[in-house]
Amino acid sequence: MHIDTLHKLYVHELKDLYSAESQILKALPKMIEAATDKELRAVLEEHLAESEEHLARIVRLFEGLEFEPGGHRCRGIEGLIAEASDVLADVTDDSVKNAAIISGCQRVEHYEMAAYGVARAFAAKIGRHDDAAVLTTTIEEEGAMDRELTRVAEHHINFTALTT
Amino acid sequence: MHIDTLHKLYVHELKDLYSAESQILKALPKMIEAATDKELRAVLEEHLAESEEHLARIVRLFEGLEFEPGGHRCRGIEGLIAEASDVLADVTDDSVKNAAIISGCQRVEHYEMAAYGVARAFAAKIGRHDDAAVLTTTIEEEGAMDRELTRVAEHHINFTALTT
Repeated sequence: MHIDTLHKLYVHELKDLYSAESQILKALPKMIEAATDKELRAVLEEHLAESEEHLARIVRLFEGLEFEPGGHRCRGIEGLIAEASDVLADVTDDSVKNAAIISGCQRVEHYEMAAYGVARAFAAKIGRHDDAAVLTTTIEEEGAMDRELTRVAEHHINFTALTT
Repeated sequence: MHIDTLHKLYVHELKDLYSAESQILKALPKMIEAATDKELRAVLEEHLAESEEHLARIVRLFEGLEFEPGGHRCRGIEGLIAEASDVLADVTDDSVKNAAIISGCQRVEHYEMAAYGVARAFAAKIGRHDDAAVLTTTIEEEGAMDRELTRVAEHHINFTALTT
């Protein structure tokens, strides 16, 4: 893709997020399977449902643009998922594994917060204010999910990992 | 590395950050070279100086631990840098390139905020409160840098990219 306008860079950001959410939807079930804590599994299942909705929102944004969502692979999320997978392979204790899962998921959440934040700024600047409003909703949900992961970690996951 | 305690997972997080900061120190000069906006270059040069200090802090934290900082490559940051590099290769307009550089750097900042946040939580939980205080300082600087990048983007970079 030849990018010479802010509009095309915005489209690129959405393609990147389309690929990111698609990769997250494939990786999250493996994280849920690896998690042994009931509350953490519930949070990750909520994350999975939200990611499906976030992907659907991006598809709807593409309907209003003259581009297709595919044709790009998000290497950022690819690296984050590979890293999380490597760490989980090295962790041999279930309680410590739950803490490691949260660590990986918070990196993913932060990627999304940054990327959606940039996409929203571009949408607003090129005058696509309805797009910016949709992206704001997703950003708020990603931020809430990150805080929820911190809450679960601080509530008992890290303590249980300490006393293992 | 065989990880079966929260202490070892904490060491792993620090090794990951050591690798992340080292990779950032190599990649940032290329971003500075690619940036054509004077204010953006100044912010990125400040980022470079801060990253050197952040790496030095991690080295000092390792001096208090029974582990060496090397032996691990952060695949998360590797993916983020590869992605930023790919995007810059596709952008043909200088003003749009400045906006794309900020987009890549904010993904990196968010990675660091997430990873340092997790490391600080682990440090506090295992009773390494001096480490946690050092990590808090870095987290605050990463957050400030992210806000500074947003400020520059909103101040004129995105507008200049729009009117290119």
